[in-house]
Amino acid sequence: MSQPSSITLDMCRQLDAEDSLAKLRDKFAFSSKGNIHFDANSIGAMPIDVPDRIQRLMTECWRDQSRRSWTTEDWAEKPRILGGDISHMIGAGANDVVVCDNTTINLFKLLSYAWKIRNSGTVILTEAHNFPTDMHVLQGFMQLLKALKVDGQIRIAEDRAQILDMLDNDVAVLYLTHVDYRSSERWDMADINKKAKSVDALTLWDLSQSAGVLDVDLGGTGADFAVGCGYKYMCGGPGGPAFLYLNPSHQKTAWPTIAGWMGHAKWNKFLSDFEPAGGASSHLTGTPSVIANEVFAASAEIWRGVTRKAVATKHKSLTDMTIKLIEQECGPLGAAVISPKNYDERGGHVAFRHDGAGPVSEALVDNGLILSFRYPDSIRLGLGPLYHNHEDVWNAVKIIKDVLTTEKWRDQKYEKVAI
Amino acid sequence: MSQPSSITLDMCRQLDAEDSLAKLRDKFAFSSKGNIHFDANSIGAMPIDVPDRIQRLMTECWRDQSRRSWTTEDWAEKPRILGGDISHMIGAGANDVVVCDNTTINLFKLLSYAWKIRNSGTVILTEAHNFPTDMHVLQGFMQLLKALKVDGQIRIAEDRAQILDMLDNDVAVLYLTHVDYRSSERWDMADINKKAKSVDALTLWDLSQSAGVLDVDLGGTGADFAVGCGYKYMCGGPGGPAFLYLNPSHQKTAWPTIAGWMGHAKWNKFLSDFEPAGGASSHLTGTPSVIANEVFAASAEIWRGVTRKAVATKHKSLTDMTIKLIEQECGPLGAAVISPKNYDERGGHVAFRHDGAGPVSEALVDNGLILSFRYPDSIRLGLGPLYHNHEDVWNAVKIIKDVLTTEKWRDQKYEKVAI
Repeated sequence: MSQPSSITLDMCRQLDAEDSLAKLRDKFAFSSKGNIHFDANSIGAMPIDVPDRIQRLMTECWRDQSRRSWTTEDWAEKPRILGGDISHMIGAGANDVVVCDNTTINLFKLLSYAWKIRNSGTVILTEAHNFPTDMHVLQGFMQLLKALKVDGQIRIAEDRAQILDMLDNDVAVLYLTHVDYRSSERWDMADINKKAKSVDALTLWDLSQSAGVLDVDLGGTGADFAVGCGYKYMCGGPGGPAFLYLNPSHQKTAWPTIAGWMGHAKWNKFLSDFEPAGGASSHLTGTPSVIANEVFAASAEIWRGVTRKAVATKHKSLTDMTIKLIEQECGPLGAAVISPKNYDERGGHVAFRHDGAGPVSEALVDNGLILSFRYPDSIRLGLGPLYHNHEDVWNAVKIIKDVLTTEKWRDQKYEKVAI
Repeated sequence: MSQPSSITLDMCRQLDAEDSLAKLRDKFAFSSKGNIHFDANSIGAMPIDVPDRIQRLMTECWRDQSRRSWTTEDWAEKPRILGGDISHMIGAGANDVVVCDNTTINLFKLLSYAWKIRNSGTVILTEAHNFPTDMHVLQGFMQLLKALKVDGQIRIAEDRAQILDMLDNDVAVLYLTHVDYRSSERWDMADINKKAKSVDALTLWDLSQSAGVLDVDLGGTGADFAVGCGYKYMCGGPGGPAFLYLNPSHQKTAWPTIAGWMGHAKWNKFLSDFEPAGGASSHLTGTPSVIANEVFAASAEIWRGVTRKAVATKHKSLTDMTIKLIEQECGPLGAAVISPKNYDERGGHVAFRHDGAGPVSEALVDNGLILSFRYPDSIRLGLGPLYHNHEDVWNAVKIIKDVLTTEKWRDQKYEKVAI
């Protein structure tokens, strides 16, 4: 499908041959149907040893050992261990991250915590296109304040460009998702954190669309709080546990909002009076999801062996290639990349728009390319640097080109919205 | 081991022959090491089809279907479906229960919700021996109120007998665990609910030690709120999801405290403004734990086929037998049952005390009987009516008698506290 001076399959293969992470591909399982999965932004690939790990957990642990596995398998420590395993991927210290609960709950925990220890102001500032659940948590928290007759306001930037203008001394917490889940636009975290500090506002970042792909540096950029999803680029399994981060400077300031026995300094002593464990651990709640943690552990083992610089470098190469190939091969067919061309402004996935995006995405799935559609007209390709290579991108774009050329999508039924 | 006019193995076998739930035993997997597990109160047995279900989820769904499984497998509806599946076991309507998150988080959600919609008073009343995480949630909530400069007090009954005396018009919420996790003492839920109503207090019950064994009737007794653990008698797997219940009369009163996209009336439309789904569903939060839900689904399928009356009848028979046999065979050896003899005052497990309880429990484990120790001197046997039978009880007590008679426990090392 190449033309003179354009990208070729050989160029893709050459990049793959030079890829320092190439061998990690063997650590993942791929569709037995031969489909190519480019929905890393919805659900990452499965580490190949997950089925065996889970089989062992079910039989040797649950069935044979039963409750004794709490001791022999260190089940209660897993949230801390797994947090340490992935901490370098977001520029955090090993003790500053725990893996637990889901993103929504972790957002609630840290938004309410940030509120409690805020420096000034009663405004929580966010943007209109923040992910729905992030908005809901914020709205729910405001309803709680209202019920308690406590003053608090939401301020919303309708346009991304407004956010810095709206950041003033009235802002207690700046509450953003690092990367837009539709367009893949990325905030400049360092710049935002700096400006937030200058007006004494605390920052809370949702890293669901950036952790595991970008060079996220929470510590280096002075972020106050962060949460993120474990099941997308982190490859932690469907509905897998999320994570949360607290800057060390905020860890000892107040009680966690949801105090529970796993956040107790001596959880296994069954003491009635709560004593925070300290650090991120204080924000653990109830009994951890043991099975989900075991799945997450398979990916954590892989993350331990990589640096976030190497991951981001490969991710840049993959997404640059994706954008160029879509423009080269599918631009004349009505596909227009809407994600930023400049890598520093881009997140984990590449989105393009097409008039028939809904039915096109379904036709792509039928032709062996799994990606995701976002209403009204965008299609997203999520690239996982641990297991995708440039030849995958070539093959994916080939399928897109074929579907658009042959107009296979014209009679396609589609679901208006899919997860 | 029998004596004249005492319980015999034949009597146990006779009861098993008459057991209407006997055939359910085939639906569970038992230790391949031949151990007898009597820790249903810590972790229930594994439904036999769990490994195959999970294997399928990993390969056919995660690996092959990836994000498409959200649609084909109804992953997002599972919290509601599973809630409906177990609702009859706690006397609730099918739409009044959802399976989600963990017990601690669900306690926080409903305690704060109850607070928001309280009728009067600013006191939350509980008892000193409530389970640690229940106490921590309460303490954490009070810390939140304090940080927000909102008035609120904790009132604690040091002795169970005091609770009704301490229940007056100042009490906003009465916050109790239905069954004591150590002694197995049970509150009279109907009586307590009635008295709470008479002073306009709302009730929040933790059913972790009673759901799946006792005849819990939330609706019939007028309970306001309840939560419970999924991994004990419910057999939902290690660290499995918990559940929550709201009386229909309270379901539309206020927003959930933790508003999230899975609690949205149209969650799959990705709308920014939260609109509560209504009912218990409003209290769903983020992406459900898909793998944990699939494990829970295996047990939910079994629960669908039984009535709580049949379960409670068998449980009474099993625990009556356990108490009598321990007294008969081990009483002279220093074992003293501390759980109530009257079934209506007793919960899911039977506890006995012994001077050497710590090392005795470890010696029992070494001799093939898995149960749990609670500091300082009690040993608990958790009985699961779906899979235990009377002959199991006979065999368990035989091991206890042997360990006590031979004093095998004297040189035993033990962990002071075990989960």
